[in-house]
Amino acid sequence: MSRFEPNSFRQHFPVINNQQDQKLVYFDNGATTQKPNAVIESVSQYYQCINANVHRASHQLSAKSTLAFEKAREQVKQLINANDIKEVIWTKGTTESINLVCQSYGDSYLSAGDDIVLTYAEHHANIVPWQLLAKRVGATIKLIPLDKDGYADINCLDEVITENCKLVACTHVSNVLGKKNPIEAVIAKAKSVGAVTLIDGAQAIAHFTVDVQALDCDFYVFSAHKLYGPTGVGVLYGKRALLEKMTPYQSGGEMIKTVSFNDETTFNSLPFKFEAGTPNIAGVIAFASALEFLQPYLPSGKQSFSAYEKQLTKYCYDKLVAIDTLDMLFNSVPDIGVISFTVQGHHNHDISTALDSYGIAVRAGHHCAMPLMEYLGVSGCIRVSLSPYNSFDEVDYFIYILKSILSPAVDNTASAKQSAANNTALFEEIQTKFAKAKSWDSKHREIMLLGKQLARLPQDMCTAEHLISGCESKAWLTAKKDEAGVMHFMANSDAKVIRGLLVIVLAVCEGKTAKELVALDINTYFESLGLMNHLSPSRGNGLLAIVEKVKALANSCS
Amino acid sequence: MSRFEPNSFRQHFPVINNQQDQKLVYFDNGATTQKPNAVIESVSQYYQCINANVHRASHQLSAKSTLAFEKAREQVKQLINANDIKEVIWTKGTTESINLVCQSYGDSYLSAGDDIVLTYAEHHANIVPWQLLAKRVGATIKLIPLDKDGYADINCLDEVITENCKLVACTHVSNVLGKKNPIEAVIAKAKSVGAVTLIDGAQAIAHFTVDVQALDCDFYVFSAHKLYGPTGVGVLYGKRALLEKMTPYQSGGEMIKTVSFNDETTFNSLPFKFEAGTPNIAGVIAFASALEFLQPYLPSGKQSFSAYEKQLTKYCYDKLVAIDTLDMLFNSVPDIGVISFTVQGHHNHDISTALDSYGIAVRAGHHCAMPLMEYLGVSGCIRVSLSPYNSFDEVDYFIYILKSILSPAVDNTASAKQSAANNTALFEEIQTKFAKAKSWDSKHREIMLLGKQLARLPQDMCTAEHLISGCESKAWLTAKKDEAGVMHFMANSDAKVIRGLLVIVLAVCEGKTAKELVALDINTYFESLGLMNHLSPSRGNGLLAIVEKVKALANSCS
Repeated sequence: MSRFEPNSFRQHFPVINNQQDQKLVYFDNGATTQKPNAVIESVSQYYQCINANVHRASHQLSAKSTLAFEKAREQVKQLINANDIKEVIWTKGTTESINLVCQSYGDSYLSAGDDIVLTYAEHHANIVPWQLLAKRVGATIKLIPLDKDGYADINCLDEVITENCKLVACTHVSNVLGKKNPIEAVIAKAKSVGAVTLIDGAQAIAHFTVDVQALDCDFYVFSAHKLYGPTGVGVLYGKRALLEKMTPYQSGGEMIKTVSFNDETTFNSLPFKFEAGTPNIAGVIAFASALEFLQPYLPSGKQSFSAYEKQLTKYCYDKLVAIDTLDMLFNSVPDIGVISFTVQGHHNHDISTALDSYGIAVRAGHHCAMPLMEYLGVSGCIRVSLSPYNSFDEVDYFIYILKSILSPAVDNTASAKQSAANNTALFEEIQTKFAKAKSWDSKHREIMLLGKQLARLPQDMCTAEHLISGCESKAWLTAKKDEAGVMHFMANSDAKVIRGLLVIVLAVCEGKTAKELVALDINTYFESLGLMNHLSPSRGNGLLAIVEKVKALANSCS
Repeated sequence: MSRFEPNSFRQHFPVINNQQDQKLVYFDNGATTQKPNAVIESVSQYYQCINANVHRASHQLSAKSTLAFEKAREQVKQLINANDIKEVIWTKGTTESINLVCQSYGDSYLSAGDDIVLTYAEHHANIVPWQLLAKRVGATIKLIPLDKDGYADINCLDEVITENCKLVACTHVSNVLGKKNPIEAVIAKAKSVGAVTLIDGAQAIAHFTVDVQALDCDFYVFSAHKLYGPTGVGVLYGKRALLEKMTPYQSGGEMIKTVSFNDETTFNSLPFKFEAGTPNIAGVIAFASALEFLQPYLPSGKQSFSAYEKQLTKYCYDKLVAIDTLDMLFNSVPDIGVISFTVQGHHNHDISTALDSYGIAVRAGHHCAMPLMEYLGVSGCIRVSLSPYNSFDEVDYFIYILKSILSPAVDNTASAKQSAANNTALFEEIQTKFAKAKSWDSKHREIMLLGKQLARLPQDMCTAEHLISGCESKAWLTAKKDEAGVMHFMANSDAKVIRGLLVIVLAVCEGKTAKELVALDINTYFESLGLMNHLSPSRGNGLLAIVEKVKALANSCS
């Protein structure tokens, strides 16, 4: 009951299943997460039933919308364990939250000679506002380097955070590296010199329990849209004492107490002092629905997705690390499913667009972290970012497609040779194994073991279209032809042995052109392995059925 | 075909028909408009099919959302006839748009000794940012007074807008007065002294064609949520040359070109320079759907609602003016359906909450325009703000309820006497008319004419519950008892003559207590008018049916 069920979780997200032209493998969750039905329905419900401006009116519709709007604030207070509801300020996103602190706190309390400390792994949103502030007030930006695993290096804290430091702005989890920074140590060090701390939780909030009181940070910021909520909503948490002494940010309606041309204009109390104008009411209320939906799945929830996320991340990381030509930005498993790498001899965007042509959405570029790219000496990278609605199947498919993209080099002949060489290796491995396995039992065990190597067709592609007819067990096979004309296969079956047979068949088919496949004398190959004698008629038929399907696919592509 | 059909327009707005507990008369459109199904479906559609972050990714989902997002910009460009798509900046609302200009233009180009000119009728959002700017740079706020009708007084322009003036910020239509300011004259005068102009179009945009090139203003700002669009989306139009020379506002992702700790950080081109962070993507796209939906209904459209709006506004204004104890803020019909007034002897909020108890949503208070209240010498006012989905029926109902709220004074006896006096006047009018009308034809004509005076029960309340049984024509009657115990009736019928009879019956019933009604000998009254002899049996039965319904209502209330 209380176990996380990825498939049932996944069912809540319509985008994933709604793509008409093509399957979608959405691995761009670091940019924005997909939205569950609960959120989508919440927006509709709001506009259909209680839409009205908040706080200012004395009618029931406005009372209803105000109630829902303020209830959402209470839910965020609970999510991050703030001490007081007045400490939760609605903004339009992480970026605005940081800009608000930068201007309302920074411009008043920082001055020439002060240090602002960041890490090398910040998002532009946590760099540029501070750069501009530093320029305005004459402060200096200082940087915490990264350790060998990509974390803010705690051994450098004493050196960087000194008595001059008035503010430390640090990301909880890097949006490129997926590493959870030792912010407890950073915050403690900052406090020891009397500096104020801002933690950018944009990437962390969807993956970890955040307790702002336990962290004892001064500001914590994040966006709703990266936590399964709507676009256009962000949160600024700030300690009440600090927020109280800060000047307003934007001004206008809602944030004032009295306005006069003759007397002084006075400002509203928290949190309204920082919320000028009509807020994103529908967005805030839908965000509350996201939080309600997420409750059981969060790290603290009864059906927490945390363990699954960890497994999925490690699985994906391990598969990527195993590809020779891939260079990870850092060589250790990230703390959240954000994995970044470059590929030798390939431009990042070539890879991401090629993946996209197979329905796989990843991101390539500088990821709004140019200084990190500069620091690591790369021009950019490819980022895979996972959510608990992603599956092992999807990772398999991604790895399979990535490998097939990487196999054809610029020289098509060379590519074909390379591909052939790879296959020859597998083919020889199989021959050796079967030569050693004298008994049918040993051969069968080998077939079963080989099944694990199958580049699996994801479950949702196991449809009638790809079904192998004439095979007693259910089995599916499909193929793509790359630019070099070489065929790449994906297959699946609900039987282990068929998966093994598929590996054996594809070992000789994979990497060949359609023309070569049409001409291929595959039965001789099977006979050389001594397979046809031992397989039961149905399995035997299965093997032939696989071959027929391969030939049909080759014919349709030649 | 091309005529505006208010009823069919109204069908698009689910909130109006979705209230379960009570009928809703939504007269708070100046605060926010309701959303058509097209907008609600657009949000769902976005999240169900193409949700992805914009601009930065190379995958198809992001391409789709970017395309839709940028198409919305093109639609806004067309709406306001901007010269260049780069002149349309997305913000979170009018307030942010003004704050952006204030900081990015104001702080760079205004200095000590400069004048900032506003009118007395501005919303706080177009006051407080300028006050704070004036304080920061040492500028002076100067004010254009209002003329006798509540418009910015063009006779004062020469006096207020002088060579010192560097910026004029003026509302297109006041959110309290509904008067369309002579902004053409204001802009011309500002240009003559080299001042930059910002027009606050928050209230105007839903009612008038706005052509920023024809106006030749420098900035024009408005919110989507007051134009049937979603919350959390605003527009800043600015002339390209000005936007180009302005410094960025918020900083972070999207608005940068290059970020470096070693070299200088450089900024993106327009419009992205002013759009830091992930925007309200779903909101922007849904706003485009609002514009698409509105196309035929806009002032320039084939089924324009403009004439209907004008009629409805005048109708409501005239009905309000006719109430003795109401004081209009200005005594002329407003240019949009925004009508503000105070009531002698009643607190504004008492009226608005009393109206709310009948499902009528209006707004009471200072309407984020405290300086205007101060200028007019009132503490606040009640504002009725109409949309083309509002109906004449709704206005009738509102006026009827407002009158019934106003009738009981503090002294219940006095109230009853007053009410009785009013009825006596109508009763005497009827007697006189019927005395003069010797023939049945003339009497019948009088009945038909009297029908026009009926406080009509709105169509959607003409339900089985209120049906008068035993009346051949369909007729409905309902009543409310006020705090003084006095009964107030509303009725309707699909037959003119029955509407007339209802007026005759209610002339003697309205304003009586339930007890008085139970005891009333109504037949004598009818006989005195000589009615029973002339009415056909069915009509006669109808009259008796009405009386029975009155007695039943009185019994249930006594």
